[in-house]
Order: sequence, then structure tokens, then C-alpha cells
Amino acid sequence: MRTVTLTKETTKDILENLLKRSPNQYGSYETAVREILAKIQEEGDGALFAYTKKFDRAEITEQNVRVTDEEIREAYETVDPALVDVIRKSLVNIRNYHEKQKQNSWFTSSEDGTMLGQKVTPLEKVGVYVPGGKAVYPSSVLMNIVPAKVAGVDRIIMTTPPGPDGKVNPSTLVAANEAGADEIYKAGGAQAIGALAYGTQSIPKVDKIVGPGNIFVALAKKAVYGHVSIDSIAGPSEILVLADDSANPRFVAADLLSQAEHDELASAILITTSRELAEKVSCEVDEFVKRLSRKEIIQKSLDQFGYILLAETMDQAVEAANAIASEHMEIVTRNPFEVMMKVRNAGAIFIGEYSSEPLGDYFAGPNHVLPTNGTAKFFSPLSVDDFIKKSSIVYYSREALKKIHKDVEQFAASEQLTAHANSIAVRFEGEE
Amino acid sequence: MRTVTLTKETTKDILENLLKRSPNQYGSYETAVREILAKIQEEGDGALFAYTKKFDRAEITEQNVRVTDEEIREAYETVDPALVDVIRKSLVNIRNYHEKQKQNSWFTSSEDGTMLGQKVTPLEKVGVYVPGGKAVYPSSVLMNIVPAKVAGVDRIIMTTPPGPDGKVNPSTLVAANEAGADEIYKAGGAQAIGALAYGTQSIPKVDKIVGPGNIFVALAKKAVYGHVSIDSIAGPSEILVLADDSANPRFVAADLLSQAEHDELASAILITTSRELAEKVSCEVDEFVKRLSRKEIIQKSLDQFGYILLAETMDQAVEAANAIASEHMEIVTRNPFEVMMKVRNAGAIFIGEYSSEPLGDYFAGPNHVLPTNGTAKFFSPLSVDDFIKKSSIVYYSREALKKIHKDVEQFAASEQLTAHANSIAVRFEGEE
Repeated sequence: MRTVTLTKETTKDILENLLKRSPNQYGSYETAVREILAKIQEEGDGALFAYTKKFDRAEITEQNVRVTDEEIREAYETVDPALVDVIRKSLVNIRNYHEKQKQNSWFTSSEDGTMLGQKVTPLEKVGVYVPGGKAVYPSSVLMNIVPAKVAGVDRIIMTTPPGPDGKVNPSTLVAANEAGADEIYKAGGAQAIGALAYGTQSIPKVDKIVGPGNIFVALAKKAVYGHVSIDSIAGPSEILVLADDSANPRFVAADLLSQAEHDELASAILITTSRELAEKVSCEVDEFVKRLSRKEIIQKSLDQFGYILLAETMDQAVEAANAIASEHMEIVTRNPFEVMMKVRNAGAIFIGEYSSEPLGDYFAGPNHVLPTNGTAKFFSPLSVDDFIKKSSIVYYSREALKKIHKDVEQFAASEQLTAHANSIAVRFEGEE
Repeated sequence: MRTVTLTKETTKDILENLLKRSPNQYGSYETAVREILAKIQEEGDGALFAYTKKFDRAEITEQNVRVTDEEIREAYETVDPALVDVIRKSLVNIRNYHEKQKQNSWFTSSEDGTMLGQKVTPLEKVGVYVPGGKAVYPSSVLMNIVPAKVAGVDRIIMTTPPGPDGKVNPSTLVAANEAGADEIYKAGGAQAIGALAYGTQSIPKVDKIVGPGNIFVALAKKAVYGHVSIDSIAGPSEILVLADDSANPRFVAADLLSQAEHDELASAILITTSRELAEKVSCEVDEFVKRLSRKEIIQKSLDQFGYILLAETMDQAVEAANAIASEHMEIVTRNPFEVMMKVRNAGAIFIGEYSSEPLGDYFAGPNHVLPTNGTAKFFSPLSVDDFIKKSSIVYYSREALKKIHKDVEQFAASEQLTAHANSIAVRFEGEE
């Protein structure tokens, strides 16, 4: 990890370096992804199974593409029952938090006969993508399915790539079943996104696709956006710790490493007003790395995208943090709630020295699917909002329209839209 | 307008025909748009002004790219004061409606020392694109700016193409000023979207871009999505009227035409259980078209994408309407509120025979920027939600973490993320 003094210039350089991790920079895979999507749209299942053979080396057909109840039962036999217990405890917290996000339809009315409102409706069909391969994250399955379930989505359709034996990872299946997936299909990569976006003979077309994935999945989601909806495009994980001299350097170091271990492109940043803390954290990081199982990934991540930034004041630190807009932010200062009030841009904010970031990944309840790569400036955590949509409601009585019909006609006429004006005027023709 | 009996097959054919209007089908312009965006990103103002010269035939420089207070004053001198009055009345309604959409931050806490919450923050900088040329829609300026203003966005930055004289349409300027735009720049097309997404010397980079535009603008917005946020991609306008034999055929015909006049690609659909109404509406449409100023556009729109659909029952009509997911829906039946309850997919729903759709375009208050082309299945009207984002808040006390730390460690360990587990364990090391 580099230690750098925080200035306007260093902030700018860091922001530029961090943006190198963006999926927007991987244009070279776009052609391949478009070809896959086009083939799925044209040929459906045939193309899907051919890609599954090619990329996952699995023989999938109409007969075995959908995970059966029997396969789910088998999965429970191989997963540690203690993990199933933890998943269930975690699910209670995740459900409780997301229940609070539910929005109601509303209306207002007036006695002269107008009613305006907003109707909230859950999406009908949602696709949840779950990556396969070596990195299997049942926690991510919970985080993607629960908000859809709480929103009231009719059909939650999960896809995940099979192994060469045609089987899906058992903890993925257990997590999906516990969270409430309605249907699970064996498909991965851009071809799975294509199947969910366009539908095939086996896999239903959905209204929205969520869930993390590799660069092919991310580009495929971007390509089908508009045809269906998607969640925000996930980038490599990030943590930013704001700390003063009251922070425990050992805790801070451990938390920085928890995100660095995700990915060589992950970023861990400490911004502190204390040079002493900076030095101690740097030492603790070096100590910890030696004994962590993913030390090579961690080292590459820290070398490329790890920073310890020295700030003059906490306000300067917060300003830089707002510019970076990290996925995860920890505030470990004497007055963490006051600092939090000044934070504009962060996916999730962890307050105080016992609110370690992985607590949020697994257990506390808020969603761990968060905006990355500076997009916390405009995107939100995955939530129930992602699985509902709204319709405006307008009712005017004859009396109410009559009072203002001339205004509407004039506005329409000013835009030269005579058929618009006519549609109002026709209701009062011959009256004046 | 064709009259067709509603069946599963005819619904499928109609959906396919309507989707032909989607911007997803215009891949051929993508290369041109990408080239423009890349040039703007590399060269900034220089490229922007060169494109403005090429496409808008206007000489724009750093000196005159931003609209001055003097230009706004001049605009007020040329706009009909009666229109300014209507704009102000309309603004009151639009603001009142959008105020009701505001969401609060919230938190929950427990006595053992956990606090969870969701913090709502307005976006800092938003770009509003306003088309120029012959079709000037001050109503659209209001609808795009007001929700951003109500959300509390710091800087609302508008761009609109100049005419060859380097001036911006006066009603656009008046509407922007009344609604509360903070800065207005003379730039249009894909180059304006590039300027807002990447920033140039003159135009600030924004967090989100909203506003309608031609195919170049739509493709540019799609291309920069992820780098900045965008509103949903607007397609041609649509109206779908659900009516029974109680409806006034003259009103229905006038309302169908109000959307058909927007664009040759616009779509106007009546679904009715009454053959008599169908016939009468068809006659009224033919009558009205003759005397409307935009009759050529209307005729093309009706020929290509206009339908009168005969349904056996209102339930069948609603089912088809949900499959079409129209931008605007009118319900003109004996029991319109009951029918509304069955509607899942529509951008805005107008209830009863005096709630003519153009009332919503100009005056009632709900936003007229609505999901088109079937996207009402998953997108919502433009709203205050588009101009805020959320951050999760997590606080755990030492006691609260201690109670559950083994669970979190086990979950992390099951995912082979040892640094995650370590970050929790380190807080209790040597205790057990």
C-alpha cells in the first residue's frame, strides 16, 4: 500500500487509477458478447446448450437444464448443517431490513373531483444470475433473491453455470432454496443473460436481470439493458476507511484486507488524519498478509489499488471520500455519526469500530450488492425498489377539467400539438 | 387503424410489430455515436464546437456556449405572457405532485446496540437534455427539471441545441428558468450527451443525464450508461384506451389522435368489448384526421401502429393491455377504478372520461416522462426517485457483534474468504 499525502492532485490521480478497473474499459470483449446474445436470440435452447458445452464443458439438454427438487434435496445432504443454520439466521436479518424498504401506493384527492396517485406494482418475472466456478458465494444468492421476494415478484428465476458433471454447486442450491428462488436453471455467462433477456424454449424471458458475474456477464447485461432492466453493473469490490487517531490499527488493517482479498482489481483505501495510525496500519497489513490464504490476490490488489492517504483535517478526508464514492465506507473516528452526516457518496456506511465491513456482507441485513467504481454518486444498494415499478394515476371529474381546460388547450397549442388541444376541447364543444 | 379481434395470436403479432419501433433496432448509428463520444472525451470543447458547427450550423465558442441572463431576459420578451402564466400554474401542480414522492432517510435501533438505516442523498449534478429544432416542448423542460429540483439536486445543468443564429428557443429558456435550471448550455445531439458524461472545459461532468432526444441522443445515453446514470431510454409515444360501451366515441377518438400526432412511429390502440364503440371510434378518427394540422404524421402512425382490438371480456382486454404495457393508458368503462386495480403495466393511467391524456402531458402534475415500448413492465415514470440515491447504514456495538461473531466467521469461512473471517475474529482475539 502506498502512503500518499492527500491533495487535489493526488485525489485526481487516484480517481484516474481506480477508474482503470471499470468494465467500460473492456470494449474488446463486446463483439464476442454480442455474437453470443444474437445467437441465443435467434436459436434459443440450441445455442444455449452449445455454449454451455463449449464454456462449461457440461452436457445440458431440455431434460436436465432445470434443477429438480431431487437435486435440491441432494444438495442439503452435502452442505454442513451448521452453515444452513447460519444462512437461516442471516435470512431473518436480511428479510427484516428489506421489509422496511417497501413502498406503498398512495393517492391524494380534492373535493372538486381530482385524484392523483402513484401505484406500486412488483415486477412479474426476475432473473437472478449466480456465478459458478471456484468462487461460490451463497451470501450473494440471499442478497439478490430476498429483495425480489420481499417486493412480491411472482417468479424468481435463477441461472447459474453447471460444472462439467452437469451439477450445480450445492451451497448455491441450498441458499437459493432457503431464500425462495422459484426456478433454477443450469446456464452461465453471456449465454445465460441472453436466455433471460430473450427467453428460450426452456428458460422464460424476464423483466429484469440482477446478480454479479464476470466481464462477459457484465457486458451482456449492459447490452440487453433497455430490452429488459438490469441492476447496476458491478465492478471490483472496494473499501474506504475514514479514521482518526482513536482507531484501532489492527482492526482497520484487517478490514482493508477483507476487501483486498476479493479480487486483484479490488481497492482498499485508508484516509486518516493520523500519521501514527497510517504507519501502524501499514505494519499490521504486512503482518496479516503473510498468514492469509489469499495473499497473492491481496498483494496484487494492494500494490495496484491500495492507498493510505494522509489528510490534514477530517473535512478534507470526507471530501476525498465523497469524490471516490466507495462501495463500502467505514467511519472509525471519535464522532462517527457526525462524520456520517457529511458523507454524500458511499454504497454502505459502517459506523464505529465494531461495525466491521464483513458483518454487512453476511449478516447485518442491508444488501451487500452495492454500487462500485464511483457509481455510488448516482446508484443505490440493491433493494426492494429494484423489483417494483410505479404507475401514475390521474382522475379529473368533468367539473375539475372544465375549470382548467383552457389552460391545457393553450399549452398544447403553444407546442403546435393541435390534436392534443382538440382532445381537451372536444369535451366542452358547443358550451361556450 | 385496423380493427382486429383480440386473441393470443393477434396480441403476439401486435407486440412484435410495436417492438419494431425500439431504439434497440437502430444499431447502424452506433458507430457514428461512439465516434462522437470518443472525440468529445478526448478533445472536449474543441470537438463539441466542431460538431455544433457541423450538425447545428452554429458558431459556438467558450464565450457564448453558456446562455446568459441577458438571453433569458430577451426570451421573456418574445414569449406570450399568457403562456408564461400557464407554465406557472402548471408548475404548481407538478411541484405538488413530486413533493409527495420525496423519501426520507430512516433507521431502526435496538437496545443491545445495533442501528441499521438507509440514508437518502440527492444527486449533486444532473444534466437535462432538451431537444431543439422544430418540435419545441416547454412542457418537457418542466417535467425533467422539477423532480430534480424537488429532490434537492445542487446543480441542474441543461443543454439544448442552438439554431444557426447561435440562439436557443425562447420558450425553452423561459420554461427552464421558471422550473429552476441552474446553468444552460448550447449543445445538442450525441455531442451534448458526451459533454455531460465526460465534462469539457465549458460543460461540467454530471452524475446523471435525463431528457428525451432523437436516435443519436438515445444511443449516446445508452453508451454512457454506467459511467453516469441515465433515465430510461425514451421511445415513440403510445396510448392505449380500454373502453366499454359506456365510452364516448368522440372523446376516445380525439385521445387516440393526441398521441398519434407525436410521431410516425407513435402508437394508438383501442381495446374494447363493444363492437359498436369500435365502429364509431373508427368513424370519428377519420372525421378528426381531416381537420388536424399534423394529419400526415397521424395517418402514417395509425396505418402502421394503430389498432382497434375487439375483446370478449374486460379481463381479456386488461390481459392484453398488461402484455402491451403502454406508456399511457386510459380506462373509460363503467367501473374504471376496478379495472385500474387489475392493471399491472402502464406508465400513467387516466381514469374516467374526463381524464384525457393531454391533461397529464401539461397540467395535472404527474410526470409526462414515461416508460415506452413495453418497458412499463419494469421502468417507472420519471420521478424524484431518479434524482436521489441511498446509502445503507450499519452500526453494531461491541456487545452486539460479540453475540453473533461466530456466525459471521463461519459464513465467511464457508466461502473461503479468510480475510473476511479474520476481520471479525481479530476483534475478539484472545477472548475465548
